[in-house]
Amino acid sequence: MRIPDLILKKRDNGRLSAAEIEAFVSGVCADSIPEEQIGALLMAIFFRGLDKDETVALTRSMLHSGDVMQWPDLGPQVADKHSTGGVGDKISLPLAPALAACGLKVPMVSGRGLGHTGGTLDKLESIPGYQTRLSQSEIRAIVQKVGCVICGQTEKVAPADKRIYSIRDITGTVESIPLITASILSKKAAAGLSSLVLDVKVGIGAFMRNIEDARALAQSLVRVGGGLGIKTVALLTEMDHPIGSTIGNALEVRESIECLRGDGPEDLVELVTVQGGTLLHAAGKVPTVKEGVEKLLESLENGAALKRFAQMVEAVGGNPEVVRDPEGILPKAKSTFEIKGTSKGFLKSIDSLEAARVALELGAGRNNKEDEVDPAVGIEVLIPRGSSVDEETPVMRIHHQGNLTEDHLQRLESATSISAHPCPPKSRILESIENQD
Amino acid sequence: MRIPDLILKKRDNGRLSAAEIEAFVSGVCADSIPEEQIGALLMAIFFRGLDKDETVALTRSMLHSGDVMQWPDLGPQVADKHSTGGVGDKISLPLAPALAACGLKVPMVSGRGLGHTGGTLDKLESIPGYQTRLSQSEIRAIVQKVGCVICGQTEKVAPADKRIYSIRDITGTVESIPLITASILSKKAAAGLSSLVLDVKVGIGAFMRNIEDARALAQSLVRVGGGLGIKTVALLTEMDHPIGSTIGNALEVRESIECLRGDGPEDLVELVTVQGGTLLHAAGKVPTVKEGVEKLLESLENGAALKRFAQMVEAVGGNPEVVRDPEGILPKAKSTFEIKGTSKGFLKSIDSLEAARVALELGAGRNNKEDEVDPAVGIEVLIPRGSSVDEETPVMRIHHQGNLTEDHLQRLESATSISAHPCPPKSRILESIENQD
Repeated sequence: MRIPDLILKKRDNGRLSAAEIEAFVSGVCADSIPEEQIGALLMAIFFRGLDKDETVALTRSMLHSGDVMQWPDLGPQVADKHSTGGVGDKISLPLAPALAACGLKVPMVSGRGLGHTGGTLDKLESIPGYQTRLSQSEIRAIVQKVGCVICGQTEKVAPADKRIYSIRDITGTVESIPLITASILSKKAAAGLSSLVLDVKVGIGAFMRNIEDARALAQSLVRVGGGLGIKTVALLTEMDHPIGSTIGNALEVRESIECLRGDGPEDLVELVTVQGGTLLHAAGKVPTVKEGVEKLLESLENGAALKRFAQMVEAVGGNPEVVRDPEGILPKAKSTFEIKGTSKGFLKSIDSLEAARVALELGAGRNNKEDEVDPAVGIEVLIPRGSSVDEETPVMRIHHQGNLTEDHLQRLESATSISAHPCPPKSRILESIENQD
Repeated sequence: MRIPDLILKKRDNGRLSAAEIEAFVSGVCADSIPEEQIGALLMAIFFRGLDKDETVALTRSMLHSGDVMQWPDLGPQVADKHSTGGVGDKISLPLAPALAACGLKVPMVSGRGLGHTGGTLDKLESIPGYQTRLSQSEIRAIVQKVGCVICGQTEKVAPADKRIYSIRDITGTVESIPLITASILSKKAAAGLSSLVLDVKVGIGAFMRNIEDARALAQSLVRVGGGLGIKTVALLTEMDHPIGSTIGNALEVRESIECLRGDGPEDLVELVTVQGGTLLHAAGKVPTVKEGVEKLLESLENGAALKRFAQMVEAVGGNPEVVRDPEGILPKAKSTFEIKGTSKGFLKSIDSLEAARVALELGAGRNNKEDEVDPAVGIEVLIPRGSSVDEETPVMRIHHQGNLTEDHLQRLESATSISAHPCPPKSRILESIENQD
């Protein structure tokens, strides 16, 4: 099988066979394909796409390029969630232990933040002692004991994805739905899942800015997930305004603990319970999504989810006292500054992309993979969307290390939309997309 | 200027500036651009194309990546011809000396054959002593003295084209009209031409199988040639049946000498005189193409062109006696074999691609750049197109070294179309395309 022939086939809109795709992926891993051919084939795929079977084959080859977990005893209960990335997106932190409390097994392999989107691992690492680098046997042991663990990806998971992604990143081939699909699902499927819920975010602070693109990605994900034998449901969720009331690592852990105490902001609780309920239903644990949502809510309100969270933190070396005294245990910034309303009216929304960029500049995120993040800094939104506001109302509190500038304040003020008319908040859940095959 | 940004721009159908294109070409030459980016950008260009200005800029950057000849004294008389490659295509051999006899200066830099198409240099090297590797100063001296020289490209001519072509060759990006245009014109323009005629071949034995593709390439070549300040005309010529009566290196030299003696086959003479006449007209030597054709024909009939050919052969170390005694001086194959007609009728055509493939297998061509060619072997077509034929008529004579097989004979018989009805030969010249800008 000659790679130039595969390039010509795809260039001319042909269909690649599973064997051809496997030759490509294994050649990439073995460094036996000239880089110019990898770049050319990825660009041909960008233009011509891959159909469902090709994308399933690509995902399979990528996931089998590394270690694949198996759960002979727990199989049907093993479930996970993936988000395409948002602002203030701490959903995984309450969701994983809540699902464990509802009887699922959740080996949640997460990533770090880059650019304006935060990373689940960065958030958890603001808990003193929390170790995100675990071996497969540690993951297995914690999932069996606690029911969930949130940790980083080992080097041995889908190495083909790492290599292909690093090439896509410099060849203008990131924004390809089949390639995004294979990248997301190869890493998730390597954890040996039976069920998966995908949070495909749409809006200003999301990778997908408009609902058509988000829907196309969601449809691809559920079809290919189904093709891999995983019960997959995608939710399109709104990402214009930051999720919950915090942006920044330690601030988001604190807010997640509030949510696990049954005291989270309305939108965060909705996102956690609907995603969790959807997954309980997909895994066959409840007859309807609605009953799943109720079960999730109950786990947040009765302390069962919080208890699992504390057990998970302890299992990976973190201080479990964080659930009782987050203020005392989580790192704090040197200074805070409050921004008030600029006019009288109702808080319509805060531009989450701009807010995230300010938080990034204050140190909450990283521009390059090698950058360190500052766990303490960030932005609190002090009032829910739709609240009435005037020039005396504190709207945001900035946690910073003395590096807050006039420019940051002006940008946050400009990012805040105040409406003269009431604008009650709407549901974040826009659509649920299931596999139709 | 970041190459990933150029890739995104072209991918999203943007226009690259001359500075951006120069950054790409110089980065390719300096080996400072990762190969995957070169492959991806070439594939994006394959899908999105380049407009005239982009292609002019690419050609300029490629030609200035190496040495560019200048002719301060001879400028407007410097002319050349390029063919996209055919079967039995020996047009350059009579054309260059005929143009020199008509007062033009022709520094004709040619190539070798690969696959089914023959190479002008391979043909000339069947003349004992003929050296195709010349320095720029040797080229200049011979052109000034004889009026023409046919030689190989020096390493220093358009090195960017060599590098980019070698990448296109393995990334499925050969068949791109702007990239073909830049490749052809960068090498030709490096010779410092004022006028250029392009022989864009169409048909079974050509790179372009249909007239629409050939026309699109021809239009691109004349527009970009014009953009470079070269008077450029393209002729679309038919390439279904082999040109003249021979395929194979020494056989084609012999036939070229016949043509230079005013005794060439009708289609070859037409191709030589119309291309030459077109170029004389483009260079301002004659008021009409028709008068140019007549002047060319005269140079073939009065011995002036033949004399220049002998002078050129001698100037590069070849034996000039070849013009007097080609049979005695050119290498000969060990054996010949005649194929007769398979039915009664009229010779409609011989599939030039299949005939060329058989000649290649007998040793006349090369599959890989490193292969040696056998100058002596080849195929003679013994009767002109349209001739009446029966089972007793010799149609082809195969010159071989004892390696002719039954399969070769069967394929050549199958490649021969005999029509029950008369089929008088038509002109090979299909269209003339001039710059409309």
